[in-house]
Amino acid sequence: MISESPYKKHYEYEIDEIEEKIKIDSFIKTHRKTVVIQGLGFVGAAMMAVVSNAKDSIGDVLYNVIGIDLPDAKNYWKIGMVNEFQPPINSADPSLRRYYKNAKITSNLMATYSEYVYEVADIVIVDIHLDITKNSLGDIDNVDFTYESFLESMRAIAKKVREETLILIETTVPPGTTEKIVQPLFKQVFKERRLNTDRLYIAHSYERVTPGANYVASINNFYRVYSGINDLSKIKAREFLETIINTKDYPLCELKSTNASEMAKVLENSYRALNIAFIQEWTEFAELSGVDLFEVISAIRKRPTHNNIMLPGFGVGGYCLTKDALLADWALKHNFNGDKKLFYSTKAIQTNDLMPTHTFQLIKKEIVSLPDVDLVIMGVSYLSDVGDSRFSPSELFYELCVAEKVKVHLHDPMLSYWKEKQLEIHQDLSLFSKMNVKIAVFTVNHKEYSRLSPDEINLIFPRLELLVDASNVISDDIASKLRRGGIKTIGVGKGHWK
Amino acid sequence: MISESPYKKHYEYEIDEIEEKIKIDSFIKTHRKTVVIQGLGFVGAAMMAVVSNAKDSIGDVLYNVIGIDLPDAKNYWKIGMVNEFQPPINSADPSLRRYYKNAKITSNLMATYSEYVYEVADIVIVDIHLDITKNSLGDIDNVDFTYESFLESMRAIAKKVREETLILIETTVPPGTTEKIVQPLFKQVFKERRLNTDRLYIAHSYERVTPGANYVASINNFYRVYSGINDLSKIKAREFLETIINTKDYPLCELKSTNASEMAKVLENSYRALNIAFIQEWTEFAELSGVDLFEVISAIRKRPTHNNIMLPGFGVGGYCLTKDALLADWALKHNFNGDKKLFYSTKAIQTNDLMPTHTFQLIKKEIVSLPDVDLVIMGVSYLSDVGDSRFSPSELFYELCVAEKVKVHLHDPMLSYWKEKQLEIHQDLSLFSKMNVKIAVFTVNHKEYSRLSPDEINLIFPRLELLVDASNVISDDIASKLRRGGIKTIGVGKGHWK
Repeated sequence: MISESPYKKHYEYEIDEIEEKIKIDSFIKTHRKTVVIQGLGFVGAAMMAVVSNAKDSIGDVLYNVIGIDLPDAKNYWKIGMVNEFQPPINSADPSLRRYYKNAKITSNLMATYSEYVYEVADIVIVDIHLDITKNSLGDIDNVDFTYESFLESMRAIAKKVREETLILIETTVPPGTTEKIVQPLFKQVFKERRLNTDRLYIAHSYERVTPGANYVASINNFYRVYSGINDLSKIKAREFLETIINTKDYPLCELKSTNASEMAKVLENSYRALNIAFIQEWTEFAELSGVDLFEVISAIRKRPTHNNIMLPGFGVGGYCLTKDALLADWALKHNFNGDKKLFYSTKAIQTNDLMPTHTFQLIKKEIVSLPDVDLVIMGVSYLSDVGDSRFSPSELFYELCVAEKVKVHLHDPMLSYWKEKQLEIHQDLSLFSKMNVKIAVFTVNHKEYSRLSPDEINLIFPRLELLVDASNVISDDIASKLRRGGIKTIGVGKGHWK
Repeated sequence: MISESPYKKHYEYEIDEIEEKIKIDSFIKTHRKTVVIQGLGFVGAAMMAVVSNAKDSIGDVLYNVIGIDLPDAKNYWKIGMVNEFQPPINSADPSLRRYYKNAKITSNLMATYSEYVYEVADIVIVDIHLDITKNSLGDIDNVDFTYESFLESMRAIAKKVREETLILIETTVPPGTTEKIVQPLFKQVFKERRLNTDRLYIAHSYERVTPGANYVASINNFYRVYSGINDLSKIKAREFLETIINTKDYPLCELKSTNASEMAKVLENSYRALNIAFIQEWTEFAELSGVDLFEVISAIRKRPTHNNIMLPGFGVGGYCLTKDALLADWALKHNFNGDKKLFYSTKAIQTNDLMPTHTFQLIKKEIVSLPDVDLVIMGVSYLSDVGDSRFSPSELFYELCVAEKVKVHLHDPMLSYWKEKQLEIHQDLSLFSKMNVKIAVFTVNHKEYSRLSPDEINLIFPRLELLVDASNVISDDIASKLRRGGIKTIGVGKGHWK
């Protein structure tokens, strides 16, 4: 496998397979179980932290933890990071580094590219991606999905694992995947390997990991749902999860089937996405009728039955809410022969994908001629106080601006480079004072933005004509002070700003 | 007005206007404020209870309370009921009768048809209906709305009230109604009457009254939102609400405009209706994929951000969720010149209206020939343990059955007569044992149903072939016992029942 890497020359772990095996064998302490975590991304990185820090009742570490990822351009460096006990992702959560430091002290964490690890695994946790691709933003009927690379990874495991190894799938998959796709594949390979298929254990359990300051806690201090293809798979999954999760405060939740646990994940994300899409039509209603939708929603949220109602906003980004309903819809048709679409769930993806268009339209109504106007997008990340630009709604907004020949500048205190667009991002607000910025758009509610006073805004943007608050960043008071200074203000969901 | 009543002969309050005035004048204790409640329906009845029971800090009653309604066929008897200190509606809440009894002791409650009461009112509370009519169930583009009768009631008030009387509108109205429709009408009439329009006070505050055991508490022990057309209207509304609501535990919530408070009401009901509609597509998915959607949702609800996700069900009924989004959509277009529909909010009404079709389809798939088959609809009310058949989803289901020549029987422990369909409802389950009932459908989760054992079900329906649980009435355990006895079971959202 390593010979396939185009980066072989630069690859610091360029040792041959035998050496890697020796390394793995010498790493393993035989009185502990070995947990292999496949995929060193956003979830795998947190799982490595939590599993390597798991201890028994007398304080001894429980597991040998080995992360595995491909030695390709996108991933090879993560292996090196983990072997140096550095988290392979950036996180605003300081406890992540602490967990990796602990693992250095207890020497029970390593990473590799070698599939040999599956041979020594008691548990393999699957944390790789399974994507669905939109060919055109907002076009929910034009998407591409294939199990191909996911199944390649599953086959790699099936070819190596021993009988009785627990395969724990954490990847968000189309419902039906574990039972109808993964299980038959393992059975087939086990038969080829003359292994006992009665000793095949596969479980599905989904994490609810969230970026930000509570990243690690969102794994080990939160509710967990799981199921398995048979009773023993469920028991093994439960026994493992009990050792890594604070089940005293967050009791485990076992479901009847992996179909159910897979469905739970995509359903909860679809619920969230729909409730964001729903508020968009009320946002536009509030703007037309002079209503402050934020105070309205705050009044509604007092009802315990309505405390999940969402706030108006700029758009929806990230890896989950932008796609999970599409995975579910794909599964309904292809895994269960359904003849209807998941109407609301998929429609919400469309609404949310196109949501930034609304902010752009508000600006167009206010500014007669956009070409050559200097505009700053304040926030490239998809989430406040997080440096994560995956599927950021700022992307569509940026493209709409560029199409109208707006001179776009970017700012984000959490990001210096926009990977997806390959653009530099300013991190210093004072830079803008020398520019001729006419329009500033708050797209993300970063703390650095919400702390700005009217005077500071005036200093940063001395020639500002229009301030657009698409993410509830500035208060009514600040907006009215800016208006008195001759700056127009528009707020998404803020019909009372005149 | 009274002369228009077709029931004049039977009308026990057939006294002339002068006598009624004398009665009202003698009822009023001048050291108290007089509160007139327009509309003796579901909300007005609760408001009369709460306002007549309001006391000051030393325990003295605060208000003279006079209910007013039309002396027509639909309403004349309510006036008589109130004057006998009987609630003019049926309620499962025992405290309602107690409140009316208290009012008898304190002699501060009466009802009348005479508009003279507006002349003596310090506060007029508007609790009348404002309907939007669907010409065809589920056809959200084919609805009729008119302010006509609502404005007639407003004009009746405007013609009589004194300056400085607070008009408190509690009716669910299209956003914009108070500011754009009611206020101009009052100003016009005040001008005609040569009254000072600066002393016109109109507020909007919506109740969140719910049927069932907490009916009265849902008025006086719950959050209240309000606003007014100007500062004094807001202050007057607040001062009044503080005397009738437990604001220590449920602080009042003032919004900037009546547009906002009107929007809050229809938005919160639209949110609820949409989340019910959303679950319907997952219900069908769960049934196709063998998933128990109830356990899935119970797992998801553990997340505080997801604890409002709804359960699968038979349909949606009642007065509010079935129409409020349509009122909002009407207002967006007609009161604010919006050019878009409230897409999700109105679509949800359509989905919910047609939801009982799903249960009917499940039956059709199971039973080859429906004509002449005896089927019992178990539950005519729209809500569990409540006797309220307004816009009950059982109606569409009943019609679908009748169209296929099914022999439909009705049962409901809370209702003996189906007003809307003019049909008798059985209240005794044992009656069915002599019939040839092949299909029983639980449409409502009344306690009487969920308490039934498999043996009791077998006794009640000795020839049962199919039991349909559309409302999560029976447990998995009971269902499997019935299946072992040869009865087929289908459950809405219960894909695991095989």
